[in-house]
Amino acid sequence: MPDRPNLAELGLNPGKRTRLHRILFEHGQRNGTALFLPYDQGLEHGPRDFAPNPVSADPRYILRLALEGPFNGIAIQIGLAEKFYWEYAGEVPLLLKLNGKTEIPPDDAALSPLHASVEDAVRLGADAVGYTLYVGTPAAEQDFAQYRQVRSDAERLGMPLVVWAYPRGSAIEAKGGRDSFYAVDYAARTASELGADVVKVNFPHPEKTDAVKAPYDTPVTPEQAIRSVVGSAGRTLLLVSGGSHAGDEAMLTKAELSMAAGATGLIFGRNVWQRGHDESLRFVDRLAGVLAKYPSRPL
Amino acid sequence: MPDRPNLAELGLNPGKRTRLHRILFEHGQRNGTALFLPYDQGLEHGPRDFAPNPVSADPRYILRLALEGPFNGIAIQIGLAEKFYWEYAGEVPLLLKLNGKTEIPPDDAALSPLHASVEDAVRLGADAVGYTLYVGTPAAEQDFAQYRQVRSDAERLGMPLVVWAYPRGSAIEAKGGRDSFYAVDYAARTASELGADVVKVNFPHPEKTDAVKAPYDTPVTPEQAIRSVVGSAGRTLLLVSGGSHAGDEAMLTKAELSMAAGATGLIFGRNVWQRGHDESLRFVDRLAGVLAKYPSRPL
Amino acid sequence: MPDRPNLAELGLNPGKRTRLHRILFEHGQRNGTALFLPYDQGLEHGPRDFAPNPVSADPRYILRLALEGPFNGIAIQIGLAEKFYWEYAGEVPLLLKLNGKTEIPPDDAALSPLHASVEDAVRLGADAVGYTLYVGTPAAEQDFAQYRQVRSDAERLGMPLVVWAYPRGSAIEAKGGRDSFYAVDYAARTASELGADVVKVNFPHPEKTDAVKAPYDTPVTPEQAIRSVVGSAGRTLLLVSGGSHAGDEAMLTKAELSMAAGATGLIFGRNVWQRGHDESLRFVDRLAGVLAKYPSRPL
Amino acid sequence: MPDRPNLAELGLNPGKRTRLHRILFEHGQRNGTALFLPYDQGLEHGPRDFAPNPVSADPRYILRLALEGPFNGIAIQIGLAEKFYWEYAGEVPLLLKLNGKTEIPPDDAALSPLHASVEDAVRLGADAVGYTLYVGTPAAEQDFAQYRQVRSDAERLGMPLVVWAYPRGSAIEAKGGRDSFYAVDYAARTASELGADVVKVNFPHPEKTDAVKAPYDTPVTPEQAIRSVVGSAGRTLLLVSGGSHAGDEAMLTKAELSMAAGATGLIFGRNVWQRGHDESLRFVDRLAGVLAKYPSRPL
Amino acid sequence: MPDRPNLAELGLNPGKRTRLHRILFEHGQRNGTALFLPYDQGLEHGPRDFAPNPVSADPRYILRLALEGPFNGIAIQIGLAEKFYWEYAGEVPLLLKLNGKTEIPPDDAALSPLHASVEDAVRLGADAVGYTLYVGTPAAEQDFAQYRQVRSDAERLGMPLVVWAYPRGSAIEAKGGRDSFYAVDYAARTASELGADVVKVNFPHPEKTDAVKAPYDTPVTPEQAIRSVVGSAGRTLLLVSGGSHAGDEAMLTKAELSMAAGATGLIFGRNVWQRGHDESLRFVDRLAGVLAKYPSRPL
Repeated sequence: MPDRPNLAELGLNPGKRTRLHRILFEHGQRNGTALFLPYDQGLEHGPRDFAPNPVSADPRYILRLALEGPFNGIAIQIGLAEKFYWEYAGEVPLLLKLNGKTEIPPDDAALSPLHASVEDAVRLGADAVGYTLYVGTPAAEQDFAQYRQVRSDAERLGMPLVVWAYPRGSAIEAKGGRDSFYAVDYAARTASELGADVVKVNFPHPEKTDAVKAPYDTPVTPEQAIRSVVGSAGRTLLLVSGGSHAGDEAMLTKAELSMAAGATGLIFGRNVWQRGHDESLRFVDRLAGVLAKYPSRPL
Repeated sequence: MPDRPNLAELGLNPGKRTRLHRILFEHGQRNGTALFLPYDQGLEHGPRDFAPNPVSADPRYILRLALEGPFNGIAIQIGLAEKFYWEYAGEVPLLLKLNGKTEIPPDDAALSPLHASVEDAVRLGADAVGYTLYVGTPAAEQDFAQYRQVRSDAERLGMPLVVWAYPRGSAIEAKGGRDSFYAVDYAARTASELGADVVKVNFPHPEKTDAVKAPYDTPVTPEQAIRSVVGSAGRTLLLVSGGSHAGDEAMLTKAELSMAAGATGLIFGRNVWQRGHDESLRFVDRLAGVLAKYPSRPL
Repeated sequence: MPDRPNLAELGLNPGKRTRLHRILFEHGQRNGTALFLPYDQGLEHGPRDFAPNPVSADPRYILRLALEGPFNGIAIQIGLAEKFYWEYAGEVPLLLKLNGKTEIPPDDAALSPLHASVEDAVRLGADAVGYTLYVGTPAAEQDFAQYRQVRSDAERLGMPLVVWAYPRGSAIEAKGGRDSFYAVDYAARTASELGADVVKVNFPHPEKTDAVKAPYDTPVTPEQAIRSVVGSAGRTLLLVSGGSHAGDEAMLTKAELSMAAGATGLIFGRNVWQRGHDESLRFVDRLAGVLAKYPSRPL
Repeated sequence: MPDRPNLAELGLNPGKRTRLHRILFEHGQRNGTALFLPYDQGLEHGPRDFAPNPVSADPRYILRLALEGPFNGIAIQIGLAEKFYWEYAGEVPLLLKLNGKTEIPPDDAALSPLHASVEDAVRLGADAVGYTLYVGTPAAEQDFAQYRQVRSDAERLGMPLVVWAYPRGSAIEAKGGRDSFYAVDYAARTASELGADVVKVNFPHPEKTDAVKAPYDTPVTPEQAIRSVVGSAGRTLLLVSGGSHAGDEAMLTKAELSMAAGATGLIFGRNVWQRGHDESLRFVDRLAGVLAKYPSRPL
Repeated sequence: MPDRPNLAELGLNPGKRTRLHRILFEHGQRNGTALFLPYDQGLEHGPRDFAPNPVSADPRYILRLALEGPFNGIAIQIGLAEKFYWEYAGEVPLLLKLNGKTEIPPDDAALSPLHASVEDAVRLGADAVGYTLYVGTPAAEQDFAQYRQVRSDAERLGMPLVVWAYPRGSAIEAKGGRDSFYAVDYAARTASELGADVVKVNFPHPEKTDAVKAPYDTPVTPEQAIRSVVGSAGRTLLLVSGGSHAGDEAMLTKAELSMAAGATGLIFGRNVWQRGHDESLRFVDRLAGVLAKYPSRPL
């Protein structure tokens, strides 16, 4: 049984605890783990991401996939939430993403502007909100200012806050890049220090040791790296994201290592819906199998 | 007995006085001195600071250390305060740090963005708030704007304001660097001019005379330097920070000189928790011995 | 060991827990019990209450008595808090009473108008706020409207809310009077239902069975009555008030029965300060002896 | 030297202390006492009050009288302050009266509605604000609600708050009347409990013992009564008002007794301006003579 | 008698007029002139300014000097006002400086960030606020935005606004420098055009004709220059600042020329307190002698 923090020991107010309980124990594997379906790529990368499986451009297709999974939640932006979620309202938890950006401008001073509010999420019946924090960006002042408002509203309204903790910008590129163990570990800790309830990170690459600070310049195993990242998140529940579509076995290995290390779950989008419907579900079924092996400790 | 300002002569409103009384007379040595345990390095430097003593990555370990010390308070960011302080609520005073940044972007125009509010501190039961002011930074406009709001809210809500007064940015590097006597003395005075109740500075280096303004280009002794810094702080109580982990004897000498000069206390983090548990407490015990020698004057 | 609710199981936010910890474990007997000194009678009854011991008209005398007790807190109105508490800031917890009235108008439609705010309490460094709710008053609409604001602010600012739950007004007089078991039990439950953290009630008189509803028309023992009242308060901590000056042995019996039943403490004013200084302290010492016998369960 | 509270021991914020210093030490006798000229009778009683000395209907006449006195301040309503004070701006302190009423409706449920704000007072350069609180009125709920806002604004803006503490309404008439010792003593204490910086009361009539509560039903001397009233006000500075025009010797006796008992000053209107100019000044000169005998203790 | 504008002809609202009356007629020479003691150099230049007379580092020394002068006011920042003014509250008028900066960053795009508000000034009992406007700075947009808020609040709250009108930044250096007659005359007019009640300028140097615009490239006498500057200020009262410590006779000549030209007063800091106590007062006495020669016209 992984050393994953328990809902009762997180200091959550009743609303946050209620909504996280719903996500973690009333959907998906119902065992304290989570498998999220993110679908914000239409804004983040543009419709080009839908080319491998054109039907994935239709939000209804994705919502049905979330139900079929069954997933613990679907992460979408305000527009899709307004126009499509009502048909499935309450059937799958909604994680409303509050900020986002296009891939068009350069990323040197990356900032993901806010386009929706925690109150929107309440109005839409969401069970969590998502915020992308670009850890290490030169635009940290604006990023923190947006984040401060979101964190405060989420606390006041009892809404779980999921932080996409992404090292980004010219400075991190000069210090070993965005997915080094140094960068991912720092990102997980940053989300924890700043009050995220859940943090989403990429799987760390401990083999990237160039230009990173000690002791990250000494290689460790992936097991050791992900265990450290989970520890850095502390009482902030950790989700590992799938990133761009890669090989299934590599993905399943990442999933297994993450869950064994104490992660709470996975958030896999393109690896799921950039393939045909049935193949998607077969892959999801294998992910669910991993989650089933790592239930939360009883209180 | 040092010529340290007395709580009764600081013009404090009742809330500030109540909370400072609690910190200075109901915890630690209970003699008007203070030993704070800062634990914001997970954000400021990243998890790499925990490598020398891996258990230090766990906020519970640090909170227990604060109780064992006994320390007069623990300085943490909003995330750790939300998720970990509740278990120790009221057992050790909370100093909520309201701004912070990662070490990733360059420091030329250093700014520590705000991520929490004085009202958060009230809600969490904190007895003080902390704000990092980068004295001399080219980003002073944003820094002062953030600070103005914090100072005003702290006054309105009776919350003591502790300013981390850190000379930082390209301009101070061109004028002798961040820890020259010129820089530290100026920083202490700046915090006093801007209304800090307590100021945290690094111990001044009077031997760094290159490029500093007169009369700081003439060497003085460390005793003379720290006495001047305490004087520049005036009725703003002064804490000397430990900085990066250094030799114990050097640290204890700094502590002794500071307290003899009228400092109110010390704020030592890495020097404490970047070593094993028992060794930490032995070092803390020696620091406490210094504080015990310098009680505040009776009213 | 009494079956008193524990701070850890009350669902308190960190600020409320911190401040209650301070009151219950850092003052008085430091064992989870409380002895409060109320001093709002100058407004509620006028200066005539000070006649038996004229020096009691001076708030400084009362504050010093609170320190000598030692009491867990002193309950005063905004005016005395502003003008007198600053000299003792932080030495004894302040319970700021937010509403009050004179005894001059008739009590048929009793209402205690608000004259201070939770934010005042924060600014003054208070550890709790007090609100008099006249249970059963025909003026309940205004009473609840005031209370709603106080409760909401207290929750937002992490300030424990102590409710003086007093059955009052023409309707309760027609149903057996203000201190019947029916009335007191109902008042304790009302405070609990409406979100008080602590409730202050008078000791119930189960022998007053006239005109009360069943089953309160059947006499029970005082032990049974107070145990029921504590149960009605549930996770709202219960304080028993002393009321007007009566015989010491009767008071000590009430105290003993209350504490044995699971009350958290006592709030005795006139019984304390309407007699000479030394005699006051001897009586307080006997009350403290009762509290010492009933520590809270460890977590 | 009377046992009058000192500005330094009142817990005043700097603005209140500055403005009270100005009134008490930079005008009038400049010895810590005060003689105020109230001129709100045009609203409270109508122009009929000006009949004995028709020129008194002209606010310019009264303002010049205030300068000639010299008085420590003039108490007027917003309209006269706006239209007449500018010509004498800063020459005599302005005490802006924030509420008032006509004498036309009956007084059973007396309430003096608010017609100006503390911010108006700041804008006009006033050194204090005045509020009439009808102690014991059945309309206490509205009265306290208005008062709460005024008190809070006055605290925030550093403006001394002078409370006209007037027992009024059907209930006090049934309990011995508005100027009994019971009523006046209670009124002084009420202002103190509710946070007035200065309280204005009528001289008590201890010979009115009918229907009052014990111990006020036992006659005491006027000396004893006024000493008790000053004590009930505590750290709220006390002004004795002249009331309707009476004999000079009786007035001077009241003044002498009040000042000897520790009152801070007098507020005499009709007794001053309801007679010819030179006679007014001769009477004022005698009042000033009384004040000169009772300077405040040095700090 | 100089052709100095009269308080009655400035279109001031009552609060501004009251407070300026206080400064000009109830302190210092009480003749409509002003001698201010500025003490913001601890922030603007750092503690190095106190080296010539080390006791000057203590704000209490400066406050006592202001009383001994007697000065018409002391100009300090929020921190010193909060911690030190309360002891002298009301004894000497407070001019609260609302913005300021350190000397550390370069001055090319000079901006003095706001750190306090007009409401702070009201709360502290100040009689005026000060704002540094860097006339001609490339950062004028931020400067004007800050100024607009200050001017508007000062108008609303009846608080006189003193503008430090300082030509500064790369552009004015390219056009003849900060103290040319062109620059100072333009600065005085700018303050007047933007709504200052009082403007503080340096004495103009009409001999600096290089690179300035016509007709300032033609030398005039100092008498002519200062007379022009006073005229440019118009109904904005003009104060001449002393600048860095220079010879007494030169200073007195500047003072005499300024007052003869219609300036309202002087604001001398380092020339006063950068020397021993008795010598300071002898110099102040000579300045007072100049002011005494130039009383304001009666209304």
